[in-house]
Amino acid sequence: MTPLTIADRTFSSRLMLGTGKFPSNESMRDALDASGTEIVTVALRRADLTGGNDPFANILDFIDPERYLLLPNTSGAMNAEEAVRLARLAATAGMPKWVKLEIHPDPRYLLPDPIETLKAARTLVDEGFTVLPYINADPVLAKHLEEAGCATVMPLGAPIGTNRGIETRRQIEIIIEQANVPVVVDAGIGVPSHAAEAMEMGADAVLVNTAIAVADNPVAMANAFRLGVEAGRTAFEAGQGSQLTEASATSPLTAFLNS
Amino acid sequence: MTPLTIADRTFSSRLMLGTGKFPSNESMRDALDASGTEIVTVALRRADLTGGNDPFANILDFIDPERYLLLPNTSGAMNAEEAVRLARLAATAGMPKWVKLEIHPDPRYLLPDPIETLKAARTLVDEGFTVLPYINADPVLAKHLEEAGCATVMPLGAPIGTNRGIETRRQIEIIIEQANVPVVVDAGIGVPSHAAEAMEMGADAVLVNTAIAVADNPVAMANAFRLGVEAGRTAFEAGQGSQLTEASATSPLTAFLNS
Amino acid sequence: MTPLTIADRTFSSRLMLGTGKFPSNESMRDALDASGTEIVTVALRRADLTGGNDPFANILDFIDPERYLLLPNTSGAMNAEEAVRLARLAATAGMPKWVKLEIHPDPRYLLPDPIETLKAARTLVDEGFTVLPYINADPVLAKHLEEAGCATVMPLGAPIGTNRGIETRRQIEIIIEQANVPVVVDAGIGVPSHAAEAMEMGADAVLVNTAIAVADNPVAMANAFRLGVEAGRTAFEAGQGSQLTEASATSPLTAFLNS
Amino acid sequence: MTPLTIADRTFSSRLMLGTGKFPSNESMRDALDASGTEIVTVALRRADLTGGNDPFANILDFIDPERYLLLPNTSGAMNAEEAVRLARLAATAGMPKWVKLEIHPDPRYLLPDPIETLKAARTLVDEGFTVLPYINADPVLAKHLEEAGCATVMPLGAPIGTNRGIETRRQIEIIIEQANVPVVVDAGIGVPSHAAEAMEMGADAVLVNTAIAVADNPVAMANAFRLGVEAGRTAFEAGQGSQLTEASATSPLTAFLNS
Repeated sequence: MTPLTIADRTFSSRLMLGTGKFPSNESMRDALDASGTEIVTVALRRADLTGGNDPFANILDFIDPERYLLLPNTSGAMNAEEAVRLARLAATAGMPKWVKLEIHPDPRYLLPDPIETLKAARTLVDEGFTVLPYINADPVLAKHLEEAGCATVMPLGAPIGTNRGIETRRQIEIIIEQANVPVVVDAGIGVPSHAAEAMEMGADAVLVNTAIAVADNPVAMANAFRLGVEAGRTAFEAGQGSQLTEASATSPLTAFLNS
Repeated sequence: MTPLTIADRTFSSRLMLGTGKFPSNESMRDALDASGTEIVTVALRRADLTGGNDPFANILDFIDPERYLLLPNTSGAMNAEEAVRLARLAATAGMPKWVKLEIHPDPRYLLPDPIETLKAARTLVDEGFTVLPYINADPVLAKHLEEAGCATVMPLGAPIGTNRGIETRRQIEIIIEQANVPVVVDAGIGVPSHAAEAMEMGADAVLVNTAIAVADNPVAMANAFRLGVEAGRTAFEAGQGSQLTEASATSPLTAFLNS
Repeated sequence: MTPLTIADRTFSSRLMLGTGKFPSNESMRDALDASGTEIVTVALRRADLTGGNDPFANILDFIDPERYLLLPNTSGAMNAEEAVRLARLAATAGMPKWVKLEIHPDPRYLLPDPIETLKAARTLVDEGFTVLPYINADPVLAKHLEEAGCATVMPLGAPIGTNRGIETRRQIEIIIEQANVPVVVDAGIGVPSHAAEAMEMGADAVLVNTAIAVADNPVAMANAFRLGVEAGRTAFEAGQGSQLTEASATSPLTAFLNS
Repeated sequence: MTPLTIADRTFSSRLMLGTGKFPSNESMRDALDASGTEIVTVALRRADLTGGNDPFANILDFIDPERYLLLPNTSGAMNAEEAVRLARLAATAGMPKWVKLEIHPDPRYLLPDPIETLKAARTLVDEGFTVLPYINADPVLAKHLEEAGCATVMPLGAPIGTNRGIETRRQIEIIIEQANVPVVVDAGIGVPSHAAEAMEMGADAVLVNTAIAVADNPVAMANAFRLGVEAGRTAFEAGQGSQLTEASATSPLTAFLNS
């Protein structure tokens, strides 16, 4: 597989992992290892920047910053102001100046807000952040964010945590066709075949969390997603044949055996 | 991955390969190697059992019988009688007494004939063959074939060579639920994500030919399918979470940062 | 809409109705009326040919034989012998010598048996019945049944009573392309859009039962299906445009307003 | 069917028509008549407000303003400023102060711009327009537009003119669930079954143009869409049964005929 470049960094893995919902920090650590990932996203609220008593407060102790790029996310922010504040706080606390920008005012479907996301992205890019925005599969919005200086666009396949796959396939195909920054499919990816499908379509990477964290065996599932991403990307680079309407014999049907 | 048992043999790979349509016998040989397959199907008409002048006559020289189980297929047979005749001829010529039973009277879509397939299967099982029938995704027919003593059932995902994936998903799910013999998804699998999907559904194996043979780089594509099958099977064994209608936050949304 | 001809009879409606699951015989009668149907199928077991105490025994009192063609069905038959016996019994009792042939050995999914269905069809055609067989969406089987003298083929869209629509779309398209007898989509049709879709594909008719019978308002739903079938058939006859990959402006984009 | 209310007006038809691409103004007029529509959208550039030489300049002569609400659209506008300017020009020219707001900077897929659309909507609502914005199927954007005072939201099913149906089904379902204004599915609707599907989902109306205008027989196709919309809405109001995973017998399978 060719390596993936985001902003000024290069990665050999095309699978990003989230850190929510794991049964324990130990299982999370082992799943990160099995997945081969190099980019790990953490909800800023969990990282206990405030010194409070969050039971997940020590999550960062389980993620080796030498091995993984820590990607703080603004999950839980309901508007641009909250998201910007969270990102600044993370930078102040010494985390990398990268941010996965998530703004979702609706608690039921956690769908991203296009208006507030673009607004926050402009502010954060201006302040020197490397911004990876989570968005609906909206090609025009993706273009605006690219033009605003975002390092990637991260369209959703289906709402967060639903495991329903790439329901927005056509829109993501258009985003991929038009983008000059990496396209990372985020949310909805529930099984390795979904991840492989995203890569076959030409997506640059995928982000997976729920599907691995809630599996009966998260470590084995992390390995399965690693294989799925490699399968899809390898196929993309190998050059796929096209779909046909009729059947196409795999061996010539003329000259049937005469004996 | 747990191993796959068909009749009295056990295999570590769950990917079967066909041998049609490759640009050369050399590329076919290398693709077989890259795929990790242990079962290779060959059209009997191509194997030149009759000593004729088929340009593919020497295909068997490129398939090591120590490494691969050679699975003769009856592709091109239009009824039970032709299929039985081909199978017997192969056995007489010293090939393994296994047969992939394909009977398709219609040259356009190459869809299998349920009536003639069951008839031929009964005859060949009686004669001691290990029979792997290619069928439409018909659960009742699958049950009849199992009861007739077939070693597997091989339902199609979509017509041969179309690369359209598992269009018959619901029917194959029922076949898997009801079968006591291995279920091998055959035909229609066009990209590794399709192969992974079949394995995630609980299929025991997949057979791929066109998608690998017509890729720009068949060897890389064979590797991609190996990874896809491993991804899907590993996920199946790791225990998948379920699909949801609503979103499900990957981190708690209450207790938002107060600072 | 052009009329529909089956065997030697011509119908102006392309919607057939089943009579199971209605809350009352009165609601069934009114739904039949609202649907505009001219062909009504009745399970022979319900018609109380044996003079027993079935609570639905008087169902025939609610179906005017002058207005509707009564189509006895062999629902519940598990093999050819049982189906043939039921059909003969109906004819002896003075019902029309038409039969909807249903043979489903599996009580869970009620999927039809291709082998037994073809066997029974041959017998019943020989005995002068007009035979309309319910089948899996199997184009080769459909061809065998047509050649056996069946008056239609009735492929399923999805298992009976599931309301899931035309999951077998590709296979039914092939059946329609190849058939010389009317193709009636039966089972799985859950909403009027499914019925319209079948007609747009070129199916000759659809059979609906569960979706109407279990609606909150069966009479209104019967009317909705009538409209759906007319919509789809009218569109088919009006000649549809094709699908495109790109957008296509509905008004020229050049020469934008200069003012 | 219950009537549809948008802003302060009530309509008995739930089918809106566009006026582009028809073979002639006469065929457009007859298709409007056959469709039963009461709302007709016209590209402002075509209405020749500037007194230029557009060959479609006289399109308004073919649309009776007593019978149809004329809904000017801003098709071709690439940003908020252009759209606002077009709407004002129409009002000045004496057209109704209603506007279908379309802003699509990308000429290939004609996808709407969420940022510019919200901006223009706010301006036009402030100026007293009744605003019906065309949008991507983005539930959060739909909420913003509703809060800005728009009279409807008009999410796309698929890119304009593609006839591919409701590819964004899940997102539109969420929009319908959350909206307090009518939801009109616009773009992508290619056959009556697509229109029926939208209505069955609970959409309040659909807008169709290309599928009717490019049909071999636009008048018959307009009638087909009228029927499809009525079918879907009638079914929605009749209360649909749910989908099942297993089959469900339409007649009891116990107590099989003993004779």
